[in-house]
Amino acid sequence: MKTLAENEKRGRPDIIHFALLEALGSPLNKERLLQVYVHTLSDHVIKVNPEARLPRNYSRFVGLMEQLFEFGKVPPSGQFLLELKRQSLSQLLREIKPDYVMAFSTKGVPNTLEEAVLKLSSRERPVVLVGGFPHNHFSEVTLKLVNELICIDPDMLETWTVTSRLIYEYERLISLPQKRLKG
Amino acid sequence: MKTLAENEKRGRPDIIHFALLEALGSPLNKERLLQVYVHTLSDHVIKVNPEARLPRNYSRFVGLMEQLFEFGKVPPSGQFLLELKRQSLSQLLREIKPDYVMAFSTKGVPNTLEEAVLKLSSRERPVVLVGGFPHNHFSEVTLKLVNELICIDPDMLETWTVTSRLIYEYERLISLPQKRLKG
Repeated sequence: MKTLAENEKRGRPDIIHFALLEALGSPLNKERLLQVYVHTLSDHVIKVNPEARLPRNYSRFVGLMEQLFEFGKVPPSGQFLLELKRQSLSQLLREIKPDYVMAFSTKGVPNTLEEAVLKLSSRERPVVLVGGFPHNHFSEVTLKLVNELICIDPDMLETWTVTSRLIYEYERLISLPQKRLKG
Repeated sequence: MKTLAENEKRGRPDIIHFALLEALGSPLNKERLLQVYVHTLSDHVIKVNPEARLPRNYSRFVGLMEQLFEFGKVPPSGQFLLELKRQSLSQLLREIKPDYVMAFSTKGVPNTLEEAVLKLSSRERPVVLVGGFPHNHFSEVTLKLVNELICIDPDMLETWTVTSRLIYEYERLISLPQKRLKG
């Protein structure tokens, strides 16, 4: 059963593609206030350079991922856009040293996204985990790393939808829309 | 010059793909409070059935679009998921009969998205236009159909980003997150 359950978390680079496009194109990222990592089921971590401009075309994105897994970073030399490490989620969190870890799941405590993000406002280095798998839930191992598990909607929302809304809600919290419009 | 400018608005079905995934997967759409249309530069209008579940895979989405342009709807028989008409934007708006038309552009009046969406709250049948082209701006013809042109960020944001945030902000306006969590 474990293999079956884990298989349901595999093989959907389209989810990562959309979610990264949402994250990297956000004003929050343009202000360099966001750092994105992708942790895979195989315990690889992809560190995403906030300045990376990813291909919009899916085939080209998959090509980039293949290059990443072959060379460990893309482009293979010079300043990286994507960098690959063998690392578990708990190792990654030890490196980041967050003062709070929030995750989203339909199994969590019901809270609007607005309320959830408000809880991050007093934190210096919050980490937020968004599941990137088409079915299933965070593993028990992952849940032990989390301070708070929150349910923002009774239906399972798409990864890219949660990513986009979360980032926007955080921008609202820090009044980034107003600041950017005033220039 | 006109041809060159118009060419910059063509040939990016990936933009429509992402934006439709954001729209159709939203709680607002799940509550059947959203109707999405895609107007193309060639004056075709695609009416999207709110119940449509689009392929996440880009190649399959492009295949669906090809089928749509061949048969006029998909699936070719029975209840349509996507339906194609030859229609200009002004013809479409005459059919929808909106009481307010808002559009987003970096050339618009600076307003946060929150302020912008608040203006829709008193409207019965608002229409919001989001540009689906990689460069360039709405045509003069389109701008004549618009009551208000708004700039929510000094940078041009991606179509799917504006779509996602707009829908979320509207959900917030009508307290949909709270209502859905209370079930």
